[in-house]
Amino acid sequence: MKLRPIAEVGAELGLAPDDVHPWGTNRAKVSLDALGKQGDRQGRLVLVSAINPTPPGEGKTTMSVALAMGLRRRGRKAVAALREPSLGPVFGVKGGGTGGGQSSLEPAADINLHFTGDLHAITSANNLLAALVDNAVYYGQPVAIDSTRVRWRRAMDMNDRFLRNVIIGLGGKAHGVPREAAFDITAASEVMAILALSENLKDLEERLGRVVVGHSPDGKPVRARDVDAAAAMVAVLKDALMPNLVQTREGGPALVHAGPFGNIAHGCSSVVGTRMGLAYADEVVTEAGFGFDLGAEKFLDIKCRNTGLWPRGVVLVVTLRALKYHGGAPLARVAEPDSAALARGFAHLEKHLESVRAFGLPAVLCVNRFPQDTESELDELRAFGKERGVEMAVCEGFTRGGEGALELADRVLAMLDATDAAPPAPRFLYELKQSPEEKVRAIARTVYGAEDVAFTASARKDLEMVRELGGSELPVCMAKTHLSLSDDATKQGRPRGFTLMVREVRLSAGAGFMVALTGDILTMPGLPREPAAKRITVHDDGRITGLMQGE
Amino acid sequence: MKLRPIAEVGAELGLAPDDVHPWGTNRAKVSLDALGKQGDRQGRLVLVSAINPTPPGEGKTTMSVALAMGLRRRGRKAVAALREPSLGPVFGVKGGGTGGGQSSLEPAADINLHFTGDLHAITSANNLLAALVDNAVYYGQPVAIDSTRVRWRRAMDMNDRFLRNVIIGLGGKAHGVPREAAFDITAASEVMAILALSENLKDLEERLGRVVVGHSPDGKPVRARDVDAAAAMVAVLKDALMPNLVQTREGGPALVHAGPFGNIAHGCSSVVGTRMGLAYADEVVTEAGFGFDLGAEKFLDIKCRNTGLWPRGVVLVVTLRALKYHGGAPLARVAEPDSAALARGFAHLEKHLESVRAFGLPAVLCVNRFPQDTESELDELRAFGKERGVEMAVCEGFTRGGEGALELADRVLAMLDATDAAPPAPRFLYELKQSPEEKVRAIARTVYGAEDVAFTASARKDLEMVRELGGSELPVCMAKTHLSLSDDATKQGRPRGFTLMVREVRLSAGAGFMVALTGDILTMPGLPREPAAKRITVHDDGRITGLMQGE
Repeated sequence: MKLRPIAEVGAELGLAPDDVHPWGTNRAKVSLDALGKQGDRQGRLVLVSAINPTPPGEGKTTMSVALAMGLRRRGRKAVAALREPSLGPVFGVKGGGTGGGQSSLEPAADINLHFTGDLHAITSANNLLAALVDNAVYYGQPVAIDSTRVRWRRAMDMNDRFLRNVIIGLGGKAHGVPREAAFDITAASEVMAILALSENLKDLEERLGRVVVGHSPDGKPVRARDVDAAAAMVAVLKDALMPNLVQTREGGPALVHAGPFGNIAHGCSSVVGTRMGLAYADEVVTEAGFGFDLGAEKFLDIKCRNTGLWPRGVVLVVTLRALKYHGGAPLARVAEPDSAALARGFAHLEKHLESVRAFGLPAVLCVNRFPQDTESELDELRAFGKERGVEMAVCEGFTRGGEGALELADRVLAMLDATDAAPPAPRFLYELKQSPEEKVRAIARTVYGAEDVAFTASARKDLEMVRELGGSELPVCMAKTHLSLSDDATKQGRPRGFTLMVREVRLSAGAGFMVALTGDILTMPGLPREPAAKRITVHDDGRITGLMQGE
Repeated sequence: MKLRPIAEVGAELGLAPDDVHPWGTNRAKVSLDALGKQGDRQGRLVLVSAINPTPPGEGKTTMSVALAMGLRRRGRKAVAALREPSLGPVFGVKGGGTGGGQSSLEPAADINLHFTGDLHAITSANNLLAALVDNAVYYGQPVAIDSTRVRWRRAMDMNDRFLRNVIIGLGGKAHGVPREAAFDITAASEVMAILALSENLKDLEERLGRVVVGHSPDGKPVRARDVDAAAAMVAVLKDALMPNLVQTREGGPALVHAGPFGNIAHGCSSVVGTRMGLAYADEVVTEAGFGFDLGAEKFLDIKCRNTGLWPRGVVLVVTLRALKYHGGAPLARVAEPDSAALARGFAHLEKHLESVRAFGLPAVLCVNRFPQDTESELDELRAFGKERGVEMAVCEGFTRGGEGALELADRVLAMLDATDAAPPAPRFLYELKQSPEEKVRAIARTVYGAEDVAFTASARKDLEMVRELGGSELPVCMAKTHLSLSDDATKQGRPRGFTLMVREVRLSAGAGFMVALTGDILTMPGLPREPAAKRITVHDDGRITGLMQGE
């Protein structure tokens, strides 16, 4: 596949040549200086989200890339502002995260492997802090730290279950202080969330300095700045804060930058990437992790609140198979026509449309079309949307690229044009001054459809700690299964009358949110019995295959 | 400091624009395709080595850069082919590894931090193999591995003593199998040694596949290829195999690539980097880690034997302070004039000059001049060299850059010109067919000046294992203190009559050598009480200071 020179892609977006730094073949980093050159110019922000997916996912990234390509075919200067993939899944089950079929980001293999080194820089910064923390444990300076209360974990960008629970510092006095410890995959590091939310190097340094790494022997919180870590971490992250420029399969620009976990973090691409897109493009297509209940809520209540950004509208991705799944069809049969299951599944969709309205946003329904989807099923969905005042577009981006996304592009442009006179104003589900319990309740009732919220005794203790550390006025980052509106992954459709149980609350003082966990959240995946690594081949010409599923 | 555009630096060396891939500001990777475009053209290879250093080091890298700059000022197309630094020391004691003063590599801060991501790629490849090995331990497939005999260790590019001895796989059945494990710093990974020695992607894949990772329950060796790791590791290392192009402070080209440890590995920059230099430059200045006894011996007996390369001559770096140290002056007083200590120190130098001759190579003595060095001391050294037929050059590269290295450049050119008619032929200290014990003995007697060699019972058992695994015809990679010619770091000067004690032998089947360890070798450094990380500052303009000592 012949790619455009990346300088040309940057020029199309209007970036000055000096601001585009090539970083390996067909990749570039964009200087943050470019942000200051466009005055008040602001493109229109489109948020791509989805209903709760079936386990294989709904193709949100594929639809986002397709939409950007469709808009470009309509003569718009459109850019996709997306998350960057982690190395871990490439060797695990899922494979790469660069869209699919004819709607992918390129160079896909490079983006899925080292890209421009952002994940590596985050791993290094995370582990530099860990080494400095344990060095303070060891020497008792520059601050004494209680070895039984170290909170900072090490990171590795690899699916490695053996590192979930470890004991470190063994081997005698010269080699540390034995203590229990753990590794997270890099995307789950608070450093990733911080990088994604930082506006500039100064903001980055301040946020890193605030991270709570443990407690002193007398119970006082110890922060990263107390072990002199913040500036060194910024040195490690300096380049990583610049957004990455790549291209869609059709040669249009894409800003792919930062990829925090969608559970224990907010799951959005970087603030600087979004700002860069808005400064230069007519439309910026961005996505938030998982379904609207998790990803979009956090995008709006955390990322948008933090930045003052607000989208013009939402593209809600659905697949007929997921609707049938939510309507009670077994996963193995969702590819078959089943009008009754489909109709029952509309209740699930309806809840998400209510949530979109709760944020005061217009929406377009985007059907990620599969070959088996029938016209009559599509008509039923179209009619359902019409009744609720929502237009539907069938997108065949996977098989036909931007050509297959023209209907979607037109519907989105119509939605955006309708907001030009009076763009939607930010509207949040809760105020920061509310208590943490009230904030969680607001999210759970409005977006999940819960009857109430309960906190375990342990979570209530966590909340006390959050208050002591001065974190109670931060927004809440919900960690919940993405497979159900409720906190029970087996409940499809539109669960009602349930009580959401918060089991644990963690403070991410640097990222600037508290995390409310509603179940066991695994922050270090494992490899499956047959790792994807086995499929990978490097050919004589240096071409790599096997990084993506079905390749 | 204003740097030249890296494309221009590549063009000066004669590289085609297509072969120079920019990789971040002022850095580039050179396509391996460039190797095939110069036919049989071969520049002249100069090996920079040193006497055994004082603990602060002798400034070998600084002298290498200075020599390359001096040669360039004499109108030669000269390139420095050097090792790339590891992230670990940057935050530890030593600071960055890009030369010093007016003889440094640029962009120094970037080279010392992420550079082009090679170290990160090596860490990832190392840890991908570790995850695949433990996944096989866990599932018992594709091959069963005895969890008590896993030999492959994880890697991190960080000084982190708490990771030297760990227990992993805790937390119950879902999270692995508890077992003792360890982390090495990335430069100590066999993957680094393999990358440095590989000729191309195919060679890289074969070497990786041969790595012995552990044993099956019935005692058979398990190799990386048995857990399907080799091709996926090559995918991770593909870009890292391309040599990196940067510039000297005076704008000349430098190929900076790979940096294996000088103790448990061979301590030389990459084979492809050296080959690239020889294909394009008139002179290639390369260095080997530590003193001549360790670094140069391994450069010649391992890297050169492996590739068919052979230098035209040696530059032996000395400092007056180190000679006085070897002559018995206490470290605190080596800056003071002490003619008697200096004269006694010549015995140490004499041994190294004998070793150079044992390899059949001519040498130039290079004095890395310090401000306190007096003319009369320099004259004494010059006279000592003259008696042994070796020319001396005083190099003030640290303070005066290439201008301060003109005498050195002239002496080196004279040495090289004298070899044009009959270039020195490869001459090794031992034949591969000799037994491992005989190989170690040959090195110890000829280069260290040992009376004999002894093996502990444990080392003899290791040698049996090496034989069983088919490794006895591999060259020997000596791991010995770099502070003495002997295996006792406290013995300066020219120790005689000692018996070298080999305590352990390891097999690096992928790199293609066996490692004979003569003492405790620490493969994961720790941070000091006052980590260098504390000095680092990121300024408002993005400039980083504090990465190098004395900055």
